[in-house]
Amino acid sequence: MTITASDLQELKDQFGERFITDQRTFAPYMRDMSWMLPEGEPVGAVFAESTEDVSKALAWANKHVVPVSVRTGGSGLAGGSVSYDGGLILSLHKMNRILEIDPENGVAVIEPGIINAEFNKELAKEGFFFAPDPASASIASVGGNIATNAGGLRAVCHGVTINWVRALEVVLADGRVIEVGSKTIKNVSSLNLKELFIGSEGTLGVITQAVVRIEHIPEYEPYTFFACFDSIEDAGYATIAIRAAENKPVSLELIDALGVRLVNERNPDLQIPQPGAGLLLGQAEGQSAKEDVEEFANTCREYGATAVMFEEGNRLFQVRRDAYPALSAAGMEVIGDVSVPIASLAEAIHNIMAISEKRQRRVSILAHAGDGNIHPIVECGEGIEESRAAEELLDEVCEMAVGMGGVVSGEHGIGYLKHHAVTQLLSPDTRDVQLAIKKALDPNGILTPGRKL
Amino acid sequence: MTITASDLQELKDQFGERFITDQRTFAPYMRDMSWMLPEGEPVGAVFAESTEDVSKALAWANKHVVPVSVRTGGSGLAGGSVSYDGGLILSLHKMNRILEIDPENGVAVIEPGIINAEFNKELAKEGFFFAPDPASASIASVGGNIATNAGGLRAVCHGVTINWVRALEVVLADGRVIEVGSKTIKNVSSLNLKELFIGSEGTLGVITQAVVRIEHIPEYEPYTFFACFDSIEDAGYATIAIRAAENKPVSLELIDALGVRLVNERNPDLQIPQPGAGLLLGQAEGQSAKEDVEEFANTCREYGATAVMFEEGNRLFQVRRDAYPALSAAGMEVIGDVSVPIASLAEAIHNIMAISEKRQRRVSILAHAGDGNIHPIVECGEGIEESRAAEELLDEVCEMAVGMGGVVSGEHGIGYLKHHAVTQLLSPDTRDVQLAIKKALDPNGILTPGRKL
Repeated sequence: MTITASDLQELKDQFGERFITDQRTFAPYMRDMSWMLPEGEPVGAVFAESTEDVSKALAWANKHVVPVSVRTGGSGLAGGSVSYDGGLILSLHKMNRILEIDPENGVAVIEPGIINAEFNKELAKEGFFFAPDPASASIASVGGNIATNAGGLRAVCHGVTINWVRALEVVLADGRVIEVGSKTIKNVSSLNLKELFIGSEGTLGVITQAVVRIEHIPEYEPYTFFACFDSIEDAGYATIAIRAAENKPVSLELIDALGVRLVNERNPDLQIPQPGAGLLLGQAEGQSAKEDVEEFANTCREYGATAVMFEEGNRLFQVRRDAYPALSAAGMEVIGDVSVPIASLAEAIHNIMAISEKRQRRVSILAHAGDGNIHPIVECGEGIEESRAAEELLDEVCEMAVGMGGVVSGEHGIGYLKHHAVTQLLSPDTRDVQLAIKKALDPNGILTPGRKL
Repeated sequence: MTITASDLQELKDQFGERFITDQRTFAPYMRDMSWMLPEGEPVGAVFAESTEDVSKALAWANKHVVPVSVRTGGSGLAGGSVSYDGGLILSLHKMNRILEIDPENGVAVIEPGIINAEFNKELAKEGFFFAPDPASASIASVGGNIATNAGGLRAVCHGVTINWVRALEVVLADGRVIEVGSKTIKNVSSLNLKELFIGSEGTLGVITQAVVRIEHIPEYEPYTFFACFDSIEDAGYATIAIRAAENKPVSLELIDALGVRLVNERNPDLQIPQPGAGLLLGQAEGQSAKEDVEEFANTCREYGATAVMFEEGNRLFQVRRDAYPALSAAGMEVIGDVSVPIASLAEAIHNIMAISEKRQRRVSILAHAGDGNIHPIVECGEGIEESRAAEELLDEVCEMAVGMGGVVSGEHGIGYLKHHAVTQLLSPDTRDVQLAIKKALDPNGILTPGRKL
């Protein structure tokens, strides 16, 4: 449909200054942190401040069949919130309040725009935390975490976002508002609609409120351990063995030698041990944290670790958060995100290194190793050809992962970036089911079309 | 549609002896363990032995628009698998194989008909367990656990069935077979279709295979504790306090005085402590199990427990499994299943006792207290009027629970039994979304119509 001046006037009348048509003002909201570019010129941006705002904006878009991109923190890495030519930008970053902290029920009620780290700062004042912990926690919104079913650093022990959401308020494509889930711990009263909206990347509805689970901050300091390996595959085998044992770490992360060196160069005071090929670092919590990390370290030694270190507390764990920014600054900035069955981790890493060699393009490895979730970080110069070459390399990594029973995204989502991969890799019947559900909930196809599904 | 002899011949040709039209033979498959009666006479029963069987049976039913009831163990308590007049019974109880136990990936691959306790017996030989643990584990199938998203006795610590399923093979209404989820720990490659099918009670597809998570059996024996209360509400307050603390029990169950007395009468050797009003019993696992139960017991004392006992191991925990059979044998057999926010547990119990008094009908309380999931067990004599009176009492309990932010089913499901309650209690827009999804996946409405949604 062609949008007329009077159509836009409807939005101006409803939203006043919360509707912006000046592209210089809304440009920062046209993309996320991936390298995907917007398709063209949106008609404008609504800066929603309430569920009612979201409802009105979607009702307008649905009536005029205008594609809507939805955005909170903008930290996405899959182009899920990149805007459309002729589309409407719907930003929820101003809906960032904590509405309630309810320790007795172990829940908090939040708006989607609250930043993960800010939320945890407020919770900490009451002695609580919210576990889903993407490396980008300082800029990622909890609403975005829910919309992508984000993973992060503590998932080995605490699970991913879906395990921490009790209920959602969702605005449907036509502007109707529904509530799914409940404050109860158990609930089988309805289809699992809450779970369906989680991770749907804005394609089925827009999340405007969430009841999330919170837990007490553990009484004891965590213990962090570091194990250096001369073979990155061996770090993978050690991970498989740790994961298969009874005792589970809270985190188990892998950084390759290049990543560690770049972090140390940027921050010489940290003095992270420099591995020959890869560093496995992990944490344990609770009363037996020290013995637990000793057990993990012993397993690492059995699989060839050349040096092992411990430290009480969280301080050095920061290396994991700093690794991607350091690699990115050094020109390794195109990030992949595959997930394989945990027992195939070492083989998958080996295969990625082989793909890198074959294509003569440097690939660095970061991984939420304990979950079998690998982020290959691909070297990429300026220009479209370089981007394309990096992307093709990652496509081959995706195919390799799927061939091992893995999947093309462990936590970043499908978005715009991996849309073609999903189209190729899901069975046609599974795609049909997805599209039938999309059609049932968003018949005009206005909600982040061409993403995820 | 009217089914002709030649339509039935199609099934006979395809299934031979696996298709039965003699009602005396399939009568046991016409209902579950609820008090709901079948609607009339089914045309026959398919005893499926493979995914292909299920696919063919559904394709036939879809073509002829025949309603299908699906059944494995038949232990359901909500009438979800009760058969239809003119319908087809699809029994999966013969699809009961364990196809793979894969310790390195921490998963097993199973067919839906395997009985929960049998599955755990086989897993135990390898040192593993599958945590979802309904009180009916000895007769309930794992496929049924998944189809209803069953809870059970260990949910406080280990979560419910949805937390233990990695992937499903599902046959759609028209006979197409899809796979959803993966063996990986993390996966955001598709809409959460696996989660949508879990707990959908056969209304969206038929589960024919599942990849489920398994974990090592804990090294240490659990500790069991008992705390006697003279006020059943106080047992509720103690539960709230235990649940709000940092340390979580593995199980926390409530049985009222009548339940305990009946168990002791049937099994005098057990010598379960007899409370004045209610018994709270729980378990802790792991190295610090003994200290943990002592902590829980102290909390119970603070909230008025008159006597507290400990025992290493599992033996006396059996009282919880025996309580419902004992109550049922004594004429208390109509079982409810509401779930409330945990902080409202004591108030909800109080309200149920008040409803019992007002209606002058005995109600006994069993509860997965640590999850806020209450089973009121209602006295019910012979005849339709008695059933109706019991059901009306439970309807009032459901309304009360919903009024407190609770839900009408915590783990038994909606089935046939609570269909009217859901129709009343869900918002029209939420129902619309459910029905739109149902229509998208099962346009002819053949899969367990009139159930769940």
